[in-house]
Amino acid sequence: MIKPVWWQDGAVHFIDQRVLPNEEKTFVAESVEQVEEAIRTMVVRGAPAIGISAAYGFVLAWLETTGRQPDFHAKLDHLAQARPTAVNLLHGLKFMQEKLRRYGETDLPPERMGELLLSEAIGYHETDINQNIEMGKWGATLFKEREKGVRVLTYCNTGSLATGGYGTALGVIRALHEEGRLAHVYACETRPFLQGARLTAYELAKDHLPYTLITDNMVAWLFVNDPVDAIVVGADRIAANGDTANKIGTLQLAILAREFNIPFYIAAPTATIDPEIESGDGIPVEERSHDEVFGHRDMRWAPEGANAWNPAFDVTPHRYIQAIITENGVINPSEIRADSLVE
Amino acid sequence: MIKPVWWQDGAVHFIDQRVLPNEEKTFVAESVEQVEEAIRTMVVRGAPAIGISAAYGFVLAWLETTGRQPDFHAKLDHLAQARPTAVNLLHGLKFMQEKLRRYGETDLPPERMGELLLSEAIGYHETDINQNIEMGKWGATLFKEREKGVRVLTYCNTGSLATGGYGTALGVIRALHEEGRLAHVYACETRPFLQGARLTAYELAKDHLPYTLITDNMVAWLFVNDPVDAIVVGADRIAANGDTANKIGTLQLAILAREFNIPFYIAAPTATIDPEIESGDGIPVEERSHDEVFGHRDMRWAPEGANAWNPAFDVTPHRYIQAIITENGVINPSEIRADSLVE
Repeated sequence: MIKPVWWQDGAVHFIDQRVLPNEEKTFVAESVEQVEEAIRTMVVRGAPAIGISAAYGFVLAWLETTGRQPDFHAKLDHLAQARPTAVNLLHGLKFMQEKLRRYGETDLPPERMGELLLSEAIGYHETDINQNIEMGKWGATLFKEREKGVRVLTYCNTGSLATGGYGTALGVIRALHEEGRLAHVYACETRPFLQGARLTAYELAKDHLPYTLITDNMVAWLFVNDPVDAIVVGADRIAANGDTANKIGTLQLAILAREFNIPFYIAAPTATIDPEIESGDGIPVEERSHDEVFGHRDMRWAPEGANAWNPAFDVTPHRYIQAIITENGVINPSEIRADSLVE
Repeated sequence: MIKPVWWQDGAVHFIDQRVLPNEEKTFVAESVEQVEEAIRTMVVRGAPAIGISAAYGFVLAWLETTGRQPDFHAKLDHLAQARPTAVNLLHGLKFMQEKLRRYGETDLPPERMGELLLSEAIGYHETDINQNIEMGKWGATLFKEREKGVRVLTYCNTGSLATGGYGTALGVIRALHEEGRLAHVYACETRPFLQGARLTAYELAKDHLPYTLITDNMVAWLFVNDPVDAIVVGADRIAANGDTANKIGTLQLAILAREFNIPFYIAAPTATIDPEIESGDGIPVEERSHDEVFGHRDMRWAPEGANAWNPAFDVTPHRYIQAIITENGVINPSEIRADSLVE
């Protein structure tokens, strides 16, 4: 299992996802500022992986300050603002804050507290993997009546690299494959950061899953020629009404799915649900540097002086979403408020 | 006015569109085989520009063989197969064949025949420019009731570089600009060959038109945030029922346009209409090398051994098309058969 982030020798280690698959490089964050940099510059990306990285970053912040105010909170505040859309970043920090509060009441020596916080962060990471595996099984049940192999279109990267090490939407695909029921995966390249072409194709190839890479503008023509059984994507934040922020381009996939009568599913841990936000209108959407649109890495193809727009996410209204696959089961977007597991 | 192709010193000269805007290079074709290469490898692209290139290629074929069979026809057959989807390639060759047939009846000396054929090819080129200018004016009338500046989304490149030197969809945008009524252009980058990011942005910047470049997956989110007044695109072949083949990604733009109640217009000369093909099902869709999907030019970002699909065009059913803008006026797709100018 590929893990995008892990703790080693007192530092947070990351697979540098900016250069995959061309280079397999490790980015080492020895300070919480470097963890923030890793998240902001997309060394690590994917909502669950960001949440896990934040939990490890919390440990570094604590070790650097032994909880001394105002330094400790300043470091955490900085970390919390690394990227605005994925709620998992805040979820990871809140999880650790709650653990610290509980341990704090027992007045432990700093060294012991550091050990306990680290083991909590590792536990948070392991929980994500286990939840992904559950989610995969739940997702696979959506196709139980299909007799032939299942054909799925997915988007961006929602696999090992985006999570603790298994995957959300790609976890559902993995589960279908493990059950011997996966026929084919179509992966959209996902401009501008190319998470699909670089990371999803890399994971699918590593695990020998049958797939075809397409550019993001080929989806409707694919559906005319060779329709899939479902679109399954991840999420960065789900509002209380089911409106879902995910990688830019998700909204138009959902619209195309409806046009072609193809079910559109979101796979995300309940940590991605933000019950404090009523609807998609309240979800902050990050805008990133125009340079990402002008080319890729050190290659630029747009003319000098070009103008661009680069929203990193979009919001899909709940009416386009047939089901949300969580670690606790498959729900309809309208059931979020009623779900006892989302408080 | 930028011209993508011209005759000079007995050879066909092209702006090499594979390397724009990074490099401004000329590709010189001294033989009909090199004209075929220029079309096949996309030194020149855009349905009308391909048609004009074919007309000049016809002159080279004639000069090389002075019409001697079977060489002459073999060269033309080879040229005719350079790219399958744009009907303009065949239209340009048929136009020249008809001229040759008429001149042939007068038994001219070879040198004089060469001169006459060249002047016919130049005339074919000039006609395209004049028709584009007419088309632009007709297209602009579609917005005559709009009091504020017009906001248009366009796709691929349909400007000077794709035509004789003015533009089809981009010609409509130019006409609006010349009338002082253009507020803004959104240009989609158009993967995988990036005609939007490289060529349309280059032309818009050169002519100081206000524009924003987006990736192809941002369209639906753009329409949520900042809807346009229309989508205007070009065409590579229009069937008798109005179904339209155009750059891959056009179909999903048309579907999104309908979802957001935005008019969807095709701008194309009548030479693009193929009355011999009943519906879109009969239009051959070219598939190109997977390498185009795996990266761009010498940069590759997909993993080794990746699988891809690379249809260069798609077909938009006529029901999604509000109007076709031609040099003779604006028509509804259903009016093609009745239009006296399309025999």
